[in-house]
Amino acid sequence: MNYLKKVVPLLFCAFCSNLVHAQQHPNIMLSKANLPAVRIGVNTYPLLKSSYQDIKHDADNALKTPINVPVPKDGGGGFTHEQHKRNYQNILACGTAYAITKDARYANYVKNMLLNYAAQYEKWPEHPKRENSNPPGKIFWQILNDCVWQVNVIQGYDMVYDGIPAADRKTIEEHLFIPICKYITEDSKETFDRIHNHGTWAVAAVGLTGYVLNKPDYVQMALKGSDKSGNTGFMKQIDELFSPDGYYTEGFYYQRYALLPFILFAKAINQYQPQAQIFKYRGGLLAKAVNIALQGTYSNGAFFPINDAMKDKTFESSELISAVDIAYADISPDKGFLDVAARQKKVIVSDGGLKVAKDIAVGLSQPFKYKPMWMSDGKNGDEGGIGVLRCGSGKKQQCLVLKAAAQGMGHGHFDRLHILYYDNGGEVFPDYGASRFINIETKGGGGYLPENTTWAKQTVAHNTLVVDQTSDFKGNLKEASKYHPEFVHFSNNTNAQVVSAKEDHAYPGVQMVRTSALIKVDGLTKPLLVDVMMASSAKEHQYDLPFWYLGNIIDASFKIEANKNNLQALGTNFGYQHLWLNAQNDVPSASGYITVMQGQSFYTTSFAGSSPFGVKLVSIGANDPNLNLLDGKAFILSQPKAENQTFISVTENHGSVDPIAETTSGAKSAVSGLSVISSDRKKTTFSFKVKDKPYTITINYADKTNFIQIN
Amino acid sequence: MNYLKKVVPLLFCAFCSNLVHAQQHPNIMLSKANLPAVRIGVNTYPLLKSSYQDIKHDADNALKTPINVPVPKDGGGGFTHEQHKRNYQNILACGTAYAITKDARYANYVKNMLLNYAAQYEKWPEHPKRENSNPPGKIFWQILNDCVWQVNVIQGYDMVYDGIPAADRKTIEEHLFIPICKYITEDSKETFDRIHNHGTWAVAAVGLTGYVLNKPDYVQMALKGSDKSGNTGFMKQIDELFSPDGYYTEGFYYQRYALLPFILFAKAINQYQPQAQIFKYRGGLLAKAVNIALQGTYSNGAFFPINDAMKDKTFESSELISAVDIAYADISPDKGFLDVAARQKKVIVSDGGLKVAKDIAVGLSQPFKYKPMWMSDGKNGDEGGIGVLRCGSGKKQQCLVLKAAAQGMGHGHFDRLHILYYDNGGEVFPDYGASRFINIETKGGGGYLPENTTWAKQTVAHNTLVVDQTSDFKGNLKEASKYHPEFVHFSNNTNAQVVSAKEDHAYPGVQMVRTSALIKVDGLTKPLLVDVMMASSAKEHQYDLPFWYLGNIIDASFKIEANKNNLQALGTNFGYQHLWLNAQNDVPSASGYITVMQGQSFYTTSFAGSSPFGVKLVSIGANDPNLNLLDGKAFILSQPKAENQTFISVTENHGSVDPIAETTSGAKSAVSGLSVISSDRKKTTFSFKVKDKPYTITINYADKTNFIQIN
Repeated sequence: MNYLKKVVPLLFCAFCSNLVHAQQHPNIMLSKANLPAVRIGVNTYPLLKSSYQDIKHDADNALKTPINVPVPKDGGGGFTHEQHKRNYQNILACGTAYAITKDARYANYVKNMLLNYAAQYEKWPEHPKRENSNPPGKIFWQILNDCVWQVNVIQGYDMVYDGIPAADRKTIEEHLFIPICKYITEDSKETFDRIHNHGTWAVAAVGLTGYVLNKPDYVQMALKGSDKSGNTGFMKQIDELFSPDGYYTEGFYYQRYALLPFILFAKAINQYQPQAQIFKYRGGLLAKAVNIALQGTYSNGAFFPINDAMKDKTFESSELISAVDIAYADISPDKGFLDVAARQKKVIVSDGGLKVAKDIAVGLSQPFKYKPMWMSDGKNGDEGGIGVLRCGSGKKQQCLVLKAAAQGMGHGHFDRLHILYYDNGGEVFPDYGASRFINIETKGGGGYLPENTTWAKQTVAHNTLVVDQTSDFKGNLKEASKYHPEFVHFSNNTNAQVVSAKEDHAYPGVQMVRTSALIKVDGLTKPLLVDVMMASSAKEHQYDLPFWYLGNIIDASFKIEANKNNLQALGTNFGYQHLWLNAQNDVPSASGYITVMQGQSFYTTSFAGSSPFGVKLVSIGANDPNLNLLDGKAFILSQPKAENQTFISVTENHGSVDPIAETTSGAKSAVSGLSVISSDRKKTTFSFKVKDKPYTITINYADKTNFIQIN
Repeated sequence: MNYLKKVVPLLFCAFCSNLVHAQQHPNIMLSKANLPAVRIGVNTYPLLKSSYQDIKHDADNALKTPINVPVPKDGGGGFTHEQHKRNYQNILACGTAYAITKDARYANYVKNMLLNYAAQYEKWPEHPKRENSNPPGKIFWQILNDCVWQVNVIQGYDMVYDGIPAADRKTIEEHLFIPICKYITEDSKETFDRIHNHGTWAVAAVGLTGYVLNKPDYVQMALKGSDKSGNTGFMKQIDELFSPDGYYTEGFYYQRYALLPFILFAKAINQYQPQAQIFKYRGGLLAKAVNIALQGTYSNGAFFPINDAMKDKTFESSELISAVDIAYADISPDKGFLDVAARQKKVIVSDGGLKVAKDIAVGLSQPFKYKPMWMSDGKNGDEGGIGVLRCGSGKKQQCLVLKAAAQGMGHGHFDRLHILYYDNGGEVFPDYGASRFINIETKGGGGYLPENTTWAKQTVAHNTLVVDQTSDFKGNLKEASKYHPEFVHFSNNTNAQVVSAKEDHAYPGVQMVRTSALIKVDGLTKPLLVDVMMASSAKEHQYDLPFWYLGNIIDASFKIEANKNNLQALGTNFGYQHLWLNAQNDVPSASGYITVMQGQSFYTTSFAGSSPFGVKLVSIGANDPNLNLLDGKAFILSQPKAENQTFISVTENHGSVDPIAETTSGAKSAVSGLSVISSDRKKTTFSFKVKDKPYTITINYADKTNFIQIN
């Protein structure tokens, strides 16, 4: 770590000089020097033009609406919650509109709104809907939301600064911004000093305010923690929350969320203290983090829902718009970012947005390159990681994600060696995501539901091995945080992309190795997904391997006899209590298949085991009195009792269905005769046929140079 | 019926003249005289150009593929089934390519293919996969498919006629077409003479063959039945299968299917015997039938799935492409048809396709006008019908369909007074459709599944009243076919569209009247769906009113306590055996609501009854050992015991959810306090509030001039 020893002190020196640059406003996303060019740009470059028109429309709507600063009362999704969110959005919109037009009405709106807050804020107690799980704010139920509010509002304030009389600015600063920063740094010190995305929002709120209000003390605390020791604060967060590859340990949904304060505050640092070269810090870590956030999406733009995640979220989210604009303009002009920006259909009305919109307009855009990769986890990059295999582009992209990352803190799921499989524009083997109806107040106030713990985080909710109907680490976060899976192998050759990882601690005495591959074979246009889950133990266990699927089972190698009545929950704990057992069948020859019709094609998963096993068909919904759970279906390969169990599956996408023309082709898989030849800790060998051509595959777990042999 | 008495004999006279016009080839969809113009058109008008390129691409692909005429073996969706389908598609494609290019390779392909069939056809027995439900073909499992084959093949033959040597034509005609027509008119006489869509395909196959082969005898049989009496055959089918409005009694899915042979054969009649003025027959019935087929779709193009129906089917289906092209070019140049043709993205390479593509190219297209309407059923228009209410256009169109039509023969469902509700681009209260995986051989050979009878046709599978947990007419087709609902009211005013119908026979001694309305109220941008189901009887009954919904229940006026384990089927028969009872709750005050989040907005259904009742939450899946059923969820308003029961519901679409921005608004309905004031056979009065403004609505069942009062 020579890097940390040499470069970091230099950076801190740069920051230590309390000489903040001569104050200019605005000077965060939009800088005074660039204003004339942006004013021309909003009439010139289509993407900047439409983005500005949207913002101006919002600003004009705000002007027409009476200012409403209600006493905080409601939780997430409730009226006062949404109203305070609208208020910061309006402040930002009016700030931008003012910067471009210099129309005093916008500045007055912001002034009046902030004076209204300034007249009330100090009287507000801690939020009445505070929850035990997260520290409270004063405006919102969580301090987190207050910080987000301040990050937005201070940018709007910066943009109308010159349009607000000095006396009013004094009132606003003394009775609103300074008390807010005090609440964040003192009352919420624990959050402020936390190495966590909530901490990042907090330091960004205080740091940005420090720059705009010319309070170097705030900037120092933001960078180095409330005690300015450097043990916490922004720099420490950059050091510890990301892996050297730029992966954020909570997963992509939170990577997106955390990225915004990182990028925004870094942008401000770069504006005020360019000598610090913040974007070069830790080998250009923030650029890597933006890139990994994008590589953490399927080709439809949706983030891989690793750990707690709302599944509709895509890279069109506002955080990624800011990140991509800044990344392209200030860090690394990767032309693939322009492709993403065009799909985001929006830029920030800012220095960066100007550059992005202009370069798109002159045709510099190139398709964003999705790459197969291993993304290491852990601050030193040695705590497992995420393997991503990809083949093809656009809707035809096949993508396999192996989650072999560390636990990922409190939002982490107990899903070691879980796989996600995407094809034909969407999920094939999906992840449940989080159990949460975000912003739906009637559903637990819009927060995480109890079923997030009892169901969504549990192992069986994922496409990975469950031992003895319990969860990894028995669902204990503290235990799970002590260990991480180990990287075994990643390779990307012409005919095969392979990733492999192992996990030795999730279940005491059980070693699990999972190897997933996309393999091209003759006669098929798309690769096969080949997946080998090997478990070994000195004791006997029950081994369950669920495959969550979408669509309908239309064929199987065995006769399915679903339970007709008296449906029972499959278990009593670790998520099994939420599963209805619909059918239970033996696979006597230790080999079989299931064909699912999904959308307009078919997926056949051929499977085989090292010894005979059964297949359970399950669906979600048992023990759900409040209807909090979403629908879902899985087939579980289930070995009731064995010391060692290897499950091998080969999944083929085949055929097509045209429901309008009422034609069907290729409803039968080309894969047949899958069987395990041998499997132990050294190697697994298995064979199958594709259209009568035999294949034998060997995985040599310990041989890095000859990891997979395909004959 | 003066019309029938006077005009029909005239028409028959025209047909009776055995003087068939001087033979020309081609002369069905594409006529010799128009060929030069079509040849220019395929290089000039974008829609004709792309349509021709698709066909030529198919034809060129066919030339590259060895001819394969397998001995018939497989059922629907199986290999030989699909191969014989491909063969007729290739014959049609090559016929068209030959007509345009005169390239002998295409004619040779058709010739060789047909000689291959001619060498085998007479040896083939009845199809081995024949089913008891439908008479067998020789090429396919149903004679129906053989007729479809011949309808397509004879058109292709007509187009390459001049390119096949006379000796080969003789072989093909004597050993293929004539034996096929013999099989249809003699061996399958029952189908040929049936007043049913299968009959129409049969007469079209024989009639078209008659014109192309210059066999007036075939044409006579096709028009007037196998005995040429006129008691059956094409003219009788036009008389009896459609209502005077053009509604086809089986419903829209089969209307689409039946329309093609009607339109194709009529087009041929018009080509060969224009003096018959077939398109003017029965007041321009065929034009009305095309129009009703289009009015029988939601704004996304999907047919209302009344009776047995595959739900993915839209007006983009090939049958409607032909129908729209012919309707526009030969019957009635409604510029809205051009809009539909543009959305179909295809025209037939034909005289009609030329005209459509040309008129679109010169900008004559106008938006297709969806209209609120009552479509009568029954050959005299007095056997009930379908009520369609519509408000708004495109994705925002709200649409309510009340099914008060007659039984609709064997594909009819037992769903008297069933409603369908569409909004925001899709279904809100859906219909299950048919229980069928079309063309999926592993699922009952691709045909209707047993669950089509045990589930899909049953009353409880629909949004209508179920009495005593049985189905209309106890699910007896013969009984159900004796009776039809009665039209009560239809009106379309600025602020309210209303439809009402009654049914007195579905359950002995129970009178049901249903009134559905789209009502605009102050302060809401979209109308409310108001629905009043009144049942009265001298005896006590259980009254269940299901609302099938999509999405997730996120709020209710009562505490939902779903069953946690030991899930039971709700009943043992009439579809109830397929329902899991998930929850059962009382609605003590006889009034309540349920809010469903569907996609990116909310639907709140406020409901009230004339006496207290309960709500059952159910899902589909019990007693389904082979996993033949699709998922589905409903809330059922359930009155366990009463003589009379009126259920009133007011459904509001409200709010919006932006999952990417993570914002929510308007999650609470503006409707409150719904209650029944009085309800009897004369009138129903009820009241509710919208944003505190009270409304009282009275329905005067017997007062046509003052049917609905809104105060």
